[in-house]
Amino acid sequence: MPLHIDVLTLFPRMLDGILAESILGKGIEAGLLSVKVHDLRAWSTDKHRTADDRPFGGGAGMVMKPEPVFAAMEQLQTPGCRRIYLTPDGTPLSPKIAEALSQETHLIFLSGHYEGIDQRIRDHVIDQELSIGDYVLTNGTLPAAVTIDALARFIPGVLGEEKSLTHESFTSKLLDFPQYTRPAEYRGMSVPEVLLSGNHAEIEKWRHARQVEKTRQVRPDLLNNSEP
Amino acid sequence: MPLHIDVLTLFPRMLDGILAESILGKGIEAGLLSVKVHDLRAWSTDKHRTADDRPFGGGAGMVMKPEPVFAAMEQLQTPGCRRIYLTPDGTPLSPKIAEALSQETHLIFLSGHYEGIDQRIRDHVIDQELSIGDYVLTNGTLPAAVTIDALARFIPGVLGEEKSLTHESFTSKLLDFPQYTRPAEYRGMSVPEVLLSGNHAEIEKWRHARQVEKTRQVRPDLLNNSEP
Repeated sequence: MPLHIDVLTLFPRMLDGILAESILGKGIEAGLLSVKVHDLRAWSTDKHRTADDRPFGGGAGMVMKPEPVFAAMEQLQTPGCRRIYLTPDGTPLSPKIAEALSQETHLIFLSGHYEGIDQRIRDHVIDQELSIGDYVLTNGTLPAAVTIDALARFIPGVLGEEKSLTHESFTSKLLDFPQYTRPAEYRGMSVPEVLLSGNHAEIEKWRHARQVEKTRQVRPDLLNNSEP
Repeated sequence: MPLHIDVLTLFPRMLDGILAESILGKGIEAGLLSVKVHDLRAWSTDKHRTADDRPFGGGAGMVMKPEPVFAAMEQLQTPGCRRIYLTPDGTPLSPKIAEALSQETHLIFLSGHYEGIDQRIRDHVIDQELSIGDYVLTNGTLPAAVTIDALARFIPGVLGEEKSLTHESFTSKLLDFPQYTRPAEYRGMSVPEVLLSGNHAEIEKWRHARQVEKTRQVRPDLLNNSEP
């Protein structure tokens, strides 16, 4: 059964274009995964459709209330589903996490205000907290889209037969090598000769040297992380 | 003059919903910044509107061709504008970078295939390369949206008067403290008493202890990074 994803958000329209376009849109159209976006306000019960309120203890910003989220989760969740909250203080998204998520059958993404959601939601109806990076956004809807895009690439068929997951940044812990395509000469700028040589051993050697060089320059932290 | 942003992408519709909704959409509507999305294929010159081609030296994936991007940049760029390429091997986006970008007057974001773009583009018509995180996406359009959302928050007026940039993850190098809002008691789950106490010194102390605790648990790397 293809992976089904529910997204709970206060800004459901944000995802319209993303789900219709690009490789992700094609994967959805081909039935390789399905994504349904829900307006969290549908589960608010008061007449103003309130979904947030001021924080206890004071402070700026509004905090998402527990009731609509608990009610939405109770309606949407299925046995064995994985409920994910997007937050800047979650575990950093990685290709390994994206791949693991791609093998689930049902995911529910909760997109909250970045100022926060009531902690009781996090304690009781969330299985995993993910961050897409060390910066702050207005809400978790774009991070949900980013996570869906990252995991969709691991679903067989989504990338198509032409493309592969090899030779990309982070499958090898090195940044990518420079790419060139036609024309070989453009406004006096030439493609490095080795790439036109047809000598595959030399090309591999040149590309690997560029990867090490670039990683050392831009992301020396990746070289120092010597995980097993 | 408010910041103007041009986005160059092969998937212009991806951004429709994002630019219309949420705090970013309100900021655009209020004229605090403007964003224009351009279809890169408009600058391709052959009858098939080709924007990519196979890489020299072999390998999977398609590489974005130089001609349409050079032509687009030449038409859109203005003196002093900043041309940014979104790529997984760029400098990691940070609040500091987002804030600096928010003070520019004209940004051009180039969203490429994540397999790569011709290196001559990067060498000649790009001023800055940014990554939103260590994972691979299908293309750079979502990363452009994430960067725009992150920088928009620093433009005066966008967040509104109620909200502030204080007490958020990464302004203090510690993750956020738990937030709670009404009801104080929900299904037997109570808000921590200290938050209802009205004792601001105690609240501050409790929140700070939770921040240190959470950072140690989820992101010990943030505590070890002792930048000046």
